[in-house]
Amino acid sequence: MDHKNKALWSGRFAESPAEIMQKYSQSLDVDWQLYKEDLQGSKAHGKMLHRIGILSEEELQQILKALEEIEEEVNQGILQPKISLEDVHMNLEARLIEKLGPLGAKIHTGRSRNDQVATDYRLYMKKAINDIKEKVLLFLTTLLERAEKDIDVVVPGFTHLQHAQPISLGHYWMAYFWKFTRDLKRFQAAYETTNVNPLGAGALAGSTLPLDREFTRKELDFEVNSQNSLDTVSDRDYLLEFLFAASTFVLHTSGLSEDLILWSTSEFDFIEPPDAFCTGSSMMPNKKNPDALELTRGKTSGVLSSLYDLMINIKGLPLTYNRDLQEDKRPVFHTIYTVNMILDVLTPLIAGIAPKEESIAPHLNKGFLLATDVAEYLVAKNVPFRETHEIVGNLVQYCIKHHKTFEDLSLEEWQNYCPAFEKDVYDILSPQLAVDRRKTFGGTARSEVKRQIQEGKTIIEVFNA
Amino acid sequence: MDHKNKALWSGRFAESPAEIMQKYSQSLDVDWQLYKEDLQGSKAHGKMLHRIGILSEEELQQILKALEEIEEEVNQGILQPKISLEDVHMNLEARLIEKLGPLGAKIHTGRSRNDQVATDYRLYMKKAINDIKEKVLLFLTTLLERAEKDIDVVVPGFTHLQHAQPISLGHYWMAYFWKFTRDLKRFQAAYETTNVNPLGAGALAGSTLPLDREFTRKELDFEVNSQNSLDTVSDRDYLLEFLFAASTFVLHTSGLSEDLILWSTSEFDFIEPPDAFCTGSSMMPNKKNPDALELTRGKTSGVLSSLYDLMINIKGLPLTYNRDLQEDKRPVFHTIYTVNMILDVLTPLIAGIAPKEESIAPHLNKGFLLATDVAEYLVAKNVPFRETHEIVGNLVQYCIKHHKTFEDLSLEEWQNYCPAFEKDVYDILSPQLAVDRRKTFGGTARSEVKRQIQEGKTIIEVFNA
Amino acid sequence: MDHKNKALWSGRFAESPAEIMQKYSQSLDVDWQLYKEDLQGSKAHGKMLHRIGILSEEELQQILKALEEIEEEVNQGILQPKISLEDVHMNLEARLIEKLGPLGAKIHTGRSRNDQVATDYRLYMKKAINDIKEKVLLFLTTLLERAEKDIDVVVPGFTHLQHAQPISLGHYWMAYFWKFTRDLKRFQAAYETTNVNPLGAGALAGSTLPLDREFTRKELDFEVNSQNSLDTVSDRDYLLEFLFAASTFVLHTSGLSEDLILWSTSEFDFIEPPDAFCTGSSMMPNKKNPDALELTRGKTSGVLSSLYDLMINIKGLPLTYNRDLQEDKRPVFHTIYTVNMILDVLTPLIAGIAPKEESIAPHLNKGFLLATDVAEYLVAKNVPFRETHEIVGNLVQYCIKHHKTFEDLSLEEWQNYCPAFEKDVYDILSPQLAVDRRKTFGGTARSEVKRQIQEGKTIIEVFNA
Amino acid sequence: MDHKNKALWSGRFAESPAEIMQKYSQSLDVDWQLYKEDLQGSKAHGKMLHRIGILSEEELQQILKALEEIEEEVNQGILQPKISLEDVHMNLEARLIEKLGPLGAKIHTGRSRNDQVATDYRLYMKKAINDIKEKVLLFLTTLLERAEKDIDVVVPGFTHLQHAQPISLGHYWMAYFWKFTRDLKRFQAAYETTNVNPLGAGALAGSTLPLDREFTRKELDFEVNSQNSLDTVSDRDYLLEFLFAASTFVLHTSGLSEDLILWSTSEFDFIEPPDAFCTGSSMMPNKKNPDALELTRGKTSGVLSSLYDLMINIKGLPLTYNRDLQEDKRPVFHTIYTVNMILDVLTPLIAGIAPKEESIAPHLNKGFLLATDVAEYLVAKNVPFRETHEIVGNLVQYCIKHHKTFEDLSLEEWQNYCPAFEKDVYDILSPQLAVDRRKTFGGTARSEVKRQIQEGKTIIEVFNA
Repeated sequence: MDHKNKALWSGRFAESPAEIMQKYSQSLDVDWQLYKEDLQGSKAHGKMLHRIGILSEEELQQILKALEEIEEEVNQGILQPKISLEDVHMNLEARLIEKLGPLGAKIHTGRSRNDQVATDYRLYMKKAINDIKEKVLLFLTTLLERAEKDIDVVVPGFTHLQHAQPISLGHYWMAYFWKFTRDLKRFQAAYETTNVNPLGAGALAGSTLPLDREFTRKELDFEVNSQNSLDTVSDRDYLLEFLFAASTFVLHTSGLSEDLILWSTSEFDFIEPPDAFCTGSSMMPNKKNPDALELTRGKTSGVLSSLYDLMINIKGLPLTYNRDLQEDKRPVFHTIYTVNMILDVLTPLIAGIAPKEESIAPHLNKGFLLATDVAEYLVAKNVPFRETHEIVGNLVQYCIKHHKTFEDLSLEEWQNYCPAFEKDVYDILSPQLAVDRRKTFGGTARSEVKRQIQEGKTIIEVFNA
Repeated sequence: MDHKNKALWSGRFAESPAEIMQKYSQSLDVDWQLYKEDLQGSKAHGKMLHRIGILSEEELQQILKALEEIEEEVNQGILQPKISLEDVHMNLEARLIEKLGPLGAKIHTGRSRNDQVATDYRLYMKKAINDIKEKVLLFLTTLLERAEKDIDVVVPGFTHLQHAQPISLGHYWMAYFWKFTRDLKRFQAAYETTNVNPLGAGALAGSTLPLDREFTRKELDFEVNSQNSLDTVSDRDYLLEFLFAASTFVLHTSGLSEDLILWSTSEFDFIEPPDAFCTGSSMMPNKKNPDALELTRGKTSGVLSSLYDLMINIKGLPLTYNRDLQEDKRPVFHTIYTVNMILDVLTPLIAGIAPKEESIAPHLNKGFLLATDVAEYLVAKNVPFRETHEIVGNLVQYCIKHHKTFEDLSLEEWQNYCPAFEKDVYDILSPQLAVDRRKTFGGTARSEVKRQIQEGKTIIEVFNA
Repeated sequence: MDHKNKALWSGRFAESPAEIMQKYSQSLDVDWQLYKEDLQGSKAHGKMLHRIGILSEEELQQILKALEEIEEEVNQGILQPKISLEDVHMNLEARLIEKLGPLGAKIHTGRSRNDQVATDYRLYMKKAINDIKEKVLLFLTTLLERAEKDIDVVVPGFTHLQHAQPISLGHYWMAYFWKFTRDLKRFQAAYETTNVNPLGAGALAGSTLPLDREFTRKELDFEVNSQNSLDTVSDRDYLLEFLFAASTFVLHTSGLSEDLILWSTSEFDFIEPPDAFCTGSSMMPNKKNPDALELTRGKTSGVLSSLYDLMINIKGLPLTYNRDLQEDKRPVFHTIYTVNMILDVLTPLIAGIAPKEESIAPHLNKGFLLATDVAEYLVAKNVPFRETHEIVGNLVQYCIKHHKTFEDLSLEEWQNYCPAFEKDVYDILSPQLAVDRRKTFGGTARSEVKRQIQEGKTIIEVFNA
Repeated sequence: MDHKNKALWSGRFAESPAEIMQKYSQSLDVDWQLYKEDLQGSKAHGKMLHRIGILSEEELQQILKALEEIEEEVNQGILQPKISLEDVHMNLEARLIEKLGPLGAKIHTGRSRNDQVATDYRLYMKKAINDIKEKVLLFLTTLLERAEKDIDVVVPGFTHLQHAQPISLGHYWMAYFWKFTRDLKRFQAAYETTNVNPLGAGALAGSTLPLDREFTRKELDFEVNSQNSLDTVSDRDYLLEFLFAASTFVLHTSGLSEDLILWSTSEFDFIEPPDAFCTGSSMMPNKKNPDALELTRGKTSGVLSSLYDLMINIKGLPLTYNRDLQEDKRPVFHTIYTVNMILDVLTPLIAGIAPKEESIAPHLNKGFLLATDVAEYLVAKNVPFRETHEIVGNLVQYCIKHHKTFEDLSLEEWQNYCPAFEKDVYDILSPQLAVDRRKTFGGTARSEVKRQIQEGKTIIEVFNA
């Protein structure tokens, strides 16, 4: 900037360009939490440099010792990041040089900021995904326990938010069990995509030094080495996969929350959510706002938009590294935080729900939930299929007109509509029996729910293994 | 939660539900910065309560004094928010009660958290939008100054990133001047949508007390009162309008950055971006990475996804307040911060750019930028329109074959392709003249660029007035 | 492509590159509907060319006649677009040349495809937005009529989907009236942003011909001329503004639909949606799925993602025209279609809703909707503010324990909790009276709802004027 | 709707509610293409009904024959869908009943529209994903062939769009090979998630009939049966996975397009894209707009927003089926179409690119691409690491000042900056040698690129197997 321009803006701005730029380009507010992984990467790189003869044994030992000390300094809050040093990598490197002089700088031999960042980030994500997987497993276990506990509770099943057929509440929990199991698989797939060693890709083209990538790979416990240096420093697929797994996860938690919020209204009143996750009113002690569920539904958008954030960032970027990509951390870290919080909340919340069977019972008589069963009863009595719908429709209209439920009808009334009705028609009018009649594989019958629970336990064991 | 369930999760979690829920539901990390507006709202509400006889003069004075003190305590960092008090409103209220006892609680008469939050947020947004508007005006001024300075610099104009016609660099800056002027209008419109007094809407239905909303409206300097209490506590349109204005703004900065990044490559080499906003390399002192421009392009996605975040949150919510909406601050505050930073950086950056005319010059001879002009020359000589394209096409092919530019052609060569060519054909071959020939209203001729600059100055004056 | 490569892919693909490219780059499936605007633009341009001496009177008349004929040919389906001619502009131009020979080509003098497309699109959008505005006005009128009709119907007002305070159903409809009024303003703003003449901007730099843009501006009924040719051919702000207005509109319809879907459940049962917009079941004639409302909620995402589509497309594009922008029509046309459909459905649907007062009544006694009123009753009796909450809380707990409502309590019971209760406490226990007590400006009292309706009528008159 | 309301809107609308609703709720414009899968599903279901004794052998044969005939009728365009029959399922069922009378209706025994739609859609997606996978494999093959062909072409490698280090063009193609390989894996994963039999889940709860799901599973060639009927009819994860795979795919094609658009500018001029995929200008025959690449970049947003569309739709929906979900087809079908088109275009386009080595050559001398190599030369000569950067920096500044490249320097000049330079310094100054020195696993050395190609071939063989 020439002098004249300098004057131009300097009259207008409180800060110098250097100050503004420092704020603009620093990433410490998000990346400082990568310090452990950065130090871990440096240790592995240092050992490898020693192995290929670039660091002497003594140099290596000095470096390793210094890196240990630095970790301790950060752990204890003694070493604080300086914004003038822009990011976690430069802060830690500066401290190493402060400690060791020229030797400290030598750790950067054969390494570029580009492959260094990629290494730190992948190490960090492996840990983050593993933590989430563990919590998802705990959540799945909670759903299984709920399903076992609530298998005998019958609730209306809904389509279009209208009563359709009675189901076991255990079956409902298992529906979400399977949804979250798919999320778990996606987290697992994201983990595998992440588990690739980038160290040794250099700035973009590899190195002229005889780096032993296989050594650092083992040292850092990566599954394989990345295949292509250009791809390595530009690739963000592993982050997108994680954000996508998180997105389907929150979509599922949003639907589950919606149902439970509805079920907590005084109109539905199917469940009592645990007090700890609601807020009340000193004036209306009966009132329980299902805040944690609303917040869970509300936090969905923050995770979905994190996925969009990174996607939009990446769109149309030329190879290889562009500074735009520095913005790849905020959405990911926000998502990691949010998914963890949701799991921390939803697991005890679901565990603490109390179904209100007395309150549910009258709902089971609304809406002629068993109309399908009556029609199928007639099919079994060999009434032609197309007639059964009409017969049941007429019966329902009769009931509505006379303010009756199916149970209130006399055998004569039944037979007025179809002579095939016999005394055993009353046997099908229990919601619990209706549930148990749906025995097809995956149906709501308790026998099937039990089968699912068994299957679910096996899946959890396999994942835990 | 019954005892058994309590045991179930408590064995698994490090934290109690109360602790987890506190973390989950608190919003202090984002809303604490609303403290000034919260205190301002309380003062206005207190004065109104006095006016309608609910607070005595002495009570009012005590409250106003305490509120002043609290503001000072926060300013000086003496009063720190407590996460157990969840949000800014409860923290400040608790402090007021601490100071004044029961009288402190009285400030909440006739007010609900719902209309209180809305008041704070609208006051905050008015200030935030005004600050941004001022910075946009400064940025527009910078673009005008650049346009004046660079009006004589000719650069290739591009379509499909291919050379099309020569343009004045001043014309280029003015193109962005007009784009950002539209953003300014959108920020202004968002400001007007925000400028509505929500205080007095209560929890959702208004109040049974004779609140004087017109009084608080004037006190808080809102333009009008909101019309409907249900709408008031559920409305987030003013935030969406702000986020949308910010989104078109960053879309424009993303395109501008893209161009300037391209122009900073060694292939284009049209401009020298100011050192302060680039990073270099100790080893390649010639290298200047246009980091600030890349970061600006990269920050686009964070703003766009903030708009999506709030939109997705709102989708399908029943009236009126749902706790989901607590998540409405993070994306908005992130956007305010980002837009401010971008303006702080882009204004001096644009001011500091040095066009490299020597380096641009050879590009003006590439790609036959003046082919259109030659065709229009022939049209003026009454050569039938449809023939001119063919003639010029043949000439260009001849030039390519013989490695010549138009300027290199002899009159004979011109006339070989069309006898209508005369000596004056050479007069049209200067890029600067080609620029100046495009005199249609809004064209690139310097006379037109000057007209635009004049118009632009008037607009800025109007906005500044 | 060299011969070898040609062979390479040709063995693998059923189609030649030319065929594939034709399919890829054509836009006829979306832009053919711009034919009227394209012909309108050509007429105006032709008249202007005559005015500045480029077309003779006779040439102009021939061209105008041919353009009229072509419009008729398209209207009658005689002229069908050819995919080989890629887009609407080339198809119509080809037909003109077919009819008039070289003269047909002359219409393109001083015009480029870039400013031609921009002209067509802006003309089209002006009409589309105007049509939508008219339908929104009709919808607003319907909401006003509903508010008038339902002003005496009391329903529970919700926060957190929990009962909060009773409100007038008329107040509810007016809440949406104000929301949609803001959408109308945004559509109006988008219209104004659209109302700018791009013709004369040329390919990107204006023209060397003395085009009279003021003439075509008047001819095409645009408000002003665009200021800068580069901006003109790259600008998509007017489309984004339309898509944003449509997005807030569908966010509002999504929330309205959610409420009405809930109110149609057998659990809430507040309303009967009109049969025509529901589907039933032959077997369960009582069942009415609120399909139109669900579809409306479901169509939200298609409109929101259309906004994102165009935003993401534009992000990071260099000036001026890039072929990416051809993709700017699909999302916009989809949105125009969807918004129209939603308005066509929601207007009669809302008009046809029947509130079920008998069914609503028992809900008004649930949840102690009048707890706030009881507390405010005590405040009016000079009971210290902070005590009233506790008193009412205790009362509510007493009621719950004894399965009573407030109305069931004897005066003695009231006074057990606070001696300030007098006989007049029963006067406040009517939901209707509770509604009418909330008389603050914008409150739910019928007097206030009437004021809003009056205000609303004025607004509609102003817009209709 | 009561009579009065009917009148109200009927005066205002051209269409009756029934007509409007028909348009609103129909899905034929998108789902008619599922006809084959719908018929396939019906055949399998019919066979199963026979197997469990619900259809006689003769009934089954009649049904199968009729279904065959219907398929032929649709194939030949004889059977056209009627909008009054709303969707593909009802159209085909109506035709079956038309043909067979009551027997036709019997096919619906034990089946609901909900599990029927799910079956059709999953069958359709399996085929669609398989088709895409095949095309991706062909595209990968093309990239491998390009890499082999261009392995000796050296181009500048970029970071920040600034020259960094020289790379093999083959290495560049292989970078994208690995990116698209990951997409292929994601498509494969989406296929596996899709490959689950939903038939037998009924409306939401399973069936009371003894349906043999294992039989239909085998018949329809699904891998497994779905585990839970509620999950089955609400699950859209398989569509999200497909849309996500498509999204990362288009993000990769957007970046590739960006590079190739840049390389096609007259400023870069690294490649000649094939004519068939560009548009030219009759007047500027030298001009080649890279339209297909721009369109490819432009089509990215349509695919990304399709993913968002479905995600936003699903957010917060209660279990199980809601009519909102009807909107799940448009974004998916648009994505299938777009991804296919992109592959159809990019494969021959990439195959047809001609690298322009002569034009690239001068770029390799710009920007001191070999500065890193010179520094590493000194490290190898035992110059302390931290000094090498400074030495090279000084050399570069000297060169710039004297308008020299490294190659122009005399040995004396080298040694002026560091005595360690010897005659062999000239040996490292060839870009090709610089490329080949980067031999680390995954580096740009030709040996490494060859290794990658070999690895790539194996991968393709495995996928093709």
